[in-house]
Amino acid sequence: MRIAYIDPVGPKGAYYFIKNELERFVDQGNNVDFFCLKRGPDNLEYRYYEALIIPDLIHLLLDLEGKGYDAAIIGCFFDPGLDVAKEMLTKMIVVGVAEASLIIAKTLGESISIIVGREKHIPKCIEVIKTKGIEGKITSIQSLGYKVNDMANNSVISELIEKKALEAITNDLADVIVLGCTLEVGHYEELQQKLNIPVIDPVVASLKYAEFLVEIKNTCKWFPSKKYAYERPLEEDIISQRIKELFYY
Amino acid sequence: MRIAYIDPVGPKGAYYFIKNELERFVDQGNNVDFFCLKRGPDNLEYRYYEALIIPDLIHLLLDLEGKGYDAAIIGCFFDPGLDVAKEMLTKMIVVGVAEASLIIAKTLGESISIIVGREKHIPKCIEVIKTKGIEGKITSIQSLGYKVNDMANNSVISELIEKKALEAITNDLADVIVLGCTLEVGHYEELQQKLNIPVIDPVVASLKYAEFLVEIKNTCKWFPSKKYAYERPLEEDIISQRIKELFYY
Amino acid sequence: MRIAYIDPVGPKGAYYFIKNELERFVDQGNNVDFFCLKRGPDNLEYRYYEALIIPDLIHLLLDLEGKGYDAAIIGCFFDPGLDVAKEMLTKMIVVGVAEASLIIAKTLGESISIIVGREKHIPKCIEVIKTKGIEGKITSIQSLGYKVNDMANNSVISELIEKKALEAITNDLADVIVLGCTLEVGHYEELQQKLNIPVIDPVVASLKYAEFLVEIKNTCKWFPSKKYAYERPLEEDIISQRIKELFYY
Amino acid sequence: MRIAYIDPVGPKGAYYFIKNELERFVDQGNNVDFFCLKRGPDNLEYRYYEALIIPDLIHLLLDLEGKGYDAAIIGCFFDPGLDVAKEMLTKMIVVGVAEASLIIAKTLGESISIIVGREKHIPKCIEVIKTKGIEGKITSIQSLGYKVNDMANNSVISELIEKKALEAITNDLADVIVLGCTLEVGHYEELQQKLNIPVIDPVVASLKYAEFLVEIKNTCKWFPSKKYAYERPLEEDIISQRIKELFYY
Amino acid sequence: MRIAYIDPVGPKGAYYFIKNELERFVDQGNNVDFFCLKRGPDNLEYRYYEALIIPDLIHLLLDLEGKGYDAAIIGCFFDPGLDVAKEMLTKMIVVGVAEASLIIAKTLGESISIIVGREKHIPKCIEVIKTKGIEGKITSIQSLGYKVNDMANNSVISELIEKKALEAITNDLADVIVLGCTLEVGHYEELQQKLNIPVIDPVVASLKYAEFLVEIKNTCKWFPSKKYAYERPLEEDIISQRIKELFYY
Amino acid sequence: MRIAYIDPVGPKGAYYFIKNELERFVDQGNNVDFFCLKRGPDNLEYRYYEALIIPDLIHLLLDLEGKGYDAAIIGCFFDPGLDVAKEMLTKMIVVGVAEASLIIAKTLGESISIIVGREKHIPKCIEVIKTKGIEGKITSIQSLGYKVNDMANNSVISELIEKKALEAITNDLADVIVLGCTLEVGHYEELQQKLNIPVIDPVVASLKYAEFLVEIKNTCKWFPSKKYAYERPLEEDIISQRIKELFYY
Repeated sequence: MRIAYIDPVGPKGAYYFIKNELERFVDQGNNVDFFCLKRGPDNLEYRYYEALIIPDLIHLLLDLEGKGYDAAIIGCFFDPGLDVAKEMLTKMIVVGVAEASLIIAKTLGESISIIVGREKHIPKCIEVIKTKGIEGKITSIQSLGYKVNDMANNSVISELIEKKALEAITNDLADVIVLGCTLEVGHYEELQQKLNIPVIDPVVASLKYAEFLVEIKNTCKWFPSKKYAYERPLEEDIISQRIKELFYY
Repeated sequence: MRIAYIDPVGPKGAYYFIKNELERFVDQGNNVDFFCLKRGPDNLEYRYYEALIIPDLIHLLLDLEGKGYDAAIIGCFFDPGLDVAKEMLTKMIVVGVAEASLIIAKTLGESISIIVGREKHIPKCIEVIKTKGIEGKITSIQSLGYKVNDMANNSVISELIEKKALEAITNDLADVIVLGCTLEVGHYEELQQKLNIPVIDPVVASLKYAEFLVEIKNTCKWFPSKKYAYERPLEEDIISQRIKELFYY
Repeated sequence: MRIAYIDPVGPKGAYYFIKNELERFVDQGNNVDFFCLKRGPDNLEYRYYEALIIPDLIHLLLDLEGKGYDAAIIGCFFDPGLDVAKEMLTKMIVVGVAEASLIIAKTLGESISIIVGREKHIPKCIEVIKTKGIEGKITSIQSLGYKVNDMANNSVISELIEKKALEAITNDLADVIVLGCTLEVGHYEELQQKLNIPVIDPVVASLKYAEFLVEIKNTCKWFPSKKYAYERPLEEDIISQRIKELFYY
Repeated sequence: MRIAYIDPVGPKGAYYFIKNELERFVDQGNNVDFFCLKRGPDNLEYRYYEALIIPDLIHLLLDLEGKGYDAAIIGCFFDPGLDVAKEMLTKMIVVGVAEASLIIAKTLGESISIIVGREKHIPKCIEVIKTKGIEGKITSIQSLGYKVNDMANNSVISELIEKKALEAITNDLADVIVLGCTLEVGHYEELQQKLNIPVIDPVVASLKYAEFLVEIKNTCKWFPSKKYAYERPLEEDIISQRIKELFYY
Repeated sequence: MRIAYIDPVGPKGAYYFIKNELERFVDQGNNVDFFCLKRGPDNLEYRYYEALIIPDLIHLLLDLEGKGYDAAIIGCFFDPGLDVAKEMLTKMIVVGVAEASLIIAKTLGESISIIVGREKHIPKCIEVIKTKGIEGKITSIQSLGYKVNDMANNSVISELIEKKALEAITNDLADVIVLGCTLEVGHYEELQQKLNIPVIDPVVASLKYAEFLVEIKNTCKWFPSKKYAYERPLEEDIISQRIKELFYY
Repeated sequence: MRIAYIDPVGPKGAYYFIKNELERFVDQGNNVDFFCLKRGPDNLEYRYYEALIIPDLIHLLLDLEGKGYDAAIIGCFFDPGLDVAKEMLTKMIVVGVAEASLIIAKTLGESISIIVGREKHIPKCIEVIKTKGIEGKITSIQSLGYKVNDMANNSVISELIEKKALEAITNDLADVIVLGCTLEVGHYEELQQKLNIPVIDPVVASLKYAEFLVEIKNTCKWFPSKKYAYERPLEEDIISQRIKELFYY
């Protein structure tokens, strides 16, 4: 099984530490490749930055599908372009890190607290949860007060996440903690051991969920429905509109 | 007051009939200009097409803001890029046709029925309503069974809208009808007279709401909050990321 | 355009400072008159007081409609009698200050905090929001701990509102503040400048929204639906029931 | 125990058949008196008519409280003035027919269908349910297509209710039927026997619930909280405002 | 009227103080008997313990029905087996202490706070409220931090409940307090007097509600619907499955 | 990996066809064993039957955990005892067929229709969905009008499911169909091919989800949180209460 993990930012923003983590957790026999975009900002904290990268992201996904990848992961907790990808892809599985993390969390407890980078992320996070129809059981969203780019390779972050997680457990009665940013990668195991409740790392969660969705696609032919929400434009329509010439970078 | 109406599709998809309608309804003394995008598909029925045009749409909005426009209207009932625009713009008002139509409709009745082009549009329409926090009072979404492009200049559409509106009134007890596609423009007055309940045309509604928002911006300094949800990236950050060079078309 | 602002209390409770504020903000060419009721308590903090004044309020509205007013504003944040007025009026626009404020606020941000006079007002305020179907996006209701009548001409109030607004911004992540009582009039501009987020004054908001609704009534013939929720009793039925003789004061 | 049932309409609208029904069902040893208002329309189908009668209704309730009644029932399915009464009364229990019927219905099944007079009543009924926080389990509201006044002494009504109830059972999977108008009185027993599911008559339900609330008031001192929502205006304030002189009829 | 109160724990867990309380509050002429189960844990804090006792509880209820009891109360705030009992019983009324307490509380105020034993109980309590469709108006659930068994005959508990109730009143604007555990019995009268708002004791509430439901069953033939949710298995099916032989203890 | 599938009925009700299906779909290298209960009714259509079997089911699960199984599936669409099992188990994964099916369905489309056996199942199904916090996106529940036991080995069922699924697609705009009963096993592949949208078989879905949860337990140590909702009773408490002696069959 070939899986692509896309850090949907430009080359300067790509956080290669994620690659190590993916390799640690990928199922034996499977292969995971790390990608970023050819152009793009170094973070997706802003709706603008997110909007900018979605077309390239979709085109990269279509390209990976053509190259025979079994699944691709969109590596940002806002799941940018996830619904677009479900509409466009016809063979390759696509996974959003938020969707994967929250689905797993729901199975593990009755109240979930999400820890995001900073307050700016909270309204967007609420919107993501609402549009996915998974708002049930989510009890609070905590903020670390850190910009995404300041979280990478930052030794303080681990302690801060722990502090916020403890608050979520005590005040919001959280059964499960979800780390609400891929830049919080690398902390979950230590934290989980300390807190003694499940701590979901979105990078790892999405990798395992991708493997699962490929497995059920292969075994059961379960693949996103193309009926209504994800009905795809006809290929001939895309060609006649000259989308490739006009929009591919 | 200078207002821009953007039909967020490529030149081939632009529906110039809308221009006439805008000129009929614009407030005396105000000016409304019709724009479409330099490139783009001829409809936004698909999430992919919508994602493709948002960057150019935002850049056009920034350009119009620079040129001194007071307001711009995003002329598609999915309000593509509306939240992105609220994040990026600092002087110019931006209006989405769905937001404007539904806000007006809420003031006019207790139960609202939206009539969209075809079933494909319904899940997207539900998502738009949910993310805007205006799902209250919306009682049904009816579908005409027509592709967006087949609705323009189509004499059958008027009758079909009437039929669906009557069903919404009888079965769903609709107090108000909202025409859920800008391509349904030109029918509301006749329909309103026949049905004897308010029928909201999204093109006209957005124009009047834009005039209103400019008025309260000028008089009361009310403008979208830049605090959390619409916090803007710093200009220097945009420059250092070379967004203009990389993403402007 | 002739607009009536009704402070729906007896003459002793009328807060004439509102009149000045209305005159400052009314559109050039429009006219706004300030009314109070011939009889009534000096505040509407209690459901009883509110119930007492609604009949006289409706009759005043009908009278103003007869005299050719284009719009009338019900100047209390509980929007007393607003739905009754929408049922009875057939030509004149009616606006509630809560409805107007919250609709504007929704356009300006993703999370709204309302600052009311005291805790007694909160359950009523929640009820108003729920029955209007605009509960989405409202993140908190803060209380000043002041009786309505003690807020007029009170120099302490401004500071207190600021304090509560800051709490709402910090704790509830409010993008927008709505002043939840017409007696908080006169503070919004200073506050807005200090806080650097939109602060909605309900008096001003309702005036501008009234102008807008008259504009769209005149231009687009959009007026509250008389179909179901606001179906009006027949005039002959009102006459045969001798309502005028029995209930007019 | 002395209970007052108030048909909150003018003398011409009072439906004395209700009196018989009350006497059939009142607990042995208790006493129930039938009242209507001194003035008022003959129905409360309109928000205007409802608003008109609430002040007189509250004053009658205060009068009955002074005369030592243990409870009073507001005999209209919109529960007009119920919250006002809970605010003003300090000794006498007050019951709304909708609140009583729906509370009982909730105990008896998982899905409830309400059968109202005509479509005009439905938005008001939805509003009543929402403001009471009892919307859970209510599965549908069916309409008979009859004006309130045309339902009294009407032999066709019984059959029509049965027809609508059967539809509610088959299509909406109703476990319980609630008759959503006091003018549907007199039909429930026959209907209940035929349908073999609980059919709640609002007149009878409110009588029994009133007896219950008096019982728990006497035994347990449970009486509506005067803390926040139902905090009462001070008697001296009412006097100084000359409410009695100005508003009593 | 013969009423059975079941403390659904084994003999060692039965809290006989409840018996005294029941006898103090039972209606003159009625009779209330206290039962516990022949086997069972001494508390139902765990879902496992609750699941264990439900079969015996149902069989005891069926036995009591056979012996002519008019009503039975399930004496645990999670209302274990209440829906099962409504399905199985055909003559005897069954009451859950949570359902009874919350229904009464809803009539008495607009915002209700529940005080449970410890945090473990909160997710279960939320689930109970949601499945009963009575989540409206419930504003908070406070925890005492005590195990159920440590609350019996504990002089500290009274003060602790008062402290938590005061917090609920101040912070959550509670109009009404509901004691969310039958082991909190014996405190409500003193507390109610001190706090001056209604405090609902679940034991007493369920007793009075049981008397009420028996009364309306006898007078109005209102009994849980056997149509859909509570459709009962056929007696012959129960016999042919040898349920009695296999499952009765 | 050793997985146990439990058909939680007595030996007579066990549907061995499920065993074949499990063996067809189990991952190579994994092992799945089919179990039923030593005693029990032949269906769980009634809340009573469901309540009866839960204790034995939990004890079987504890036994399987002791024997080293990695996961167990509770094979009934009401997920009986699932939360109890999450509380009691400390090493073995437990999966409910409804939870597994609906989580997968959510990933595959925006609107899901569930097809259950008969109307009796619908209120229970709604309750299951609500308590799991996964009600979002579920658009309808269709009923076949068949008792569970009449669905096994019934050639008519396949056609009937197809008919209902087509109705759900046309009327409810279902993107995905979930077969809401394990007795509908064996039909999904043909149906999926005909309908060209995902059709989720609950037996197969739960098997694959169980494999996934074991995988992430082993790799990531993610296991249901024992913090609040699923806090387990202490082993010594279970022993001192003599649960084993009193409740094991």
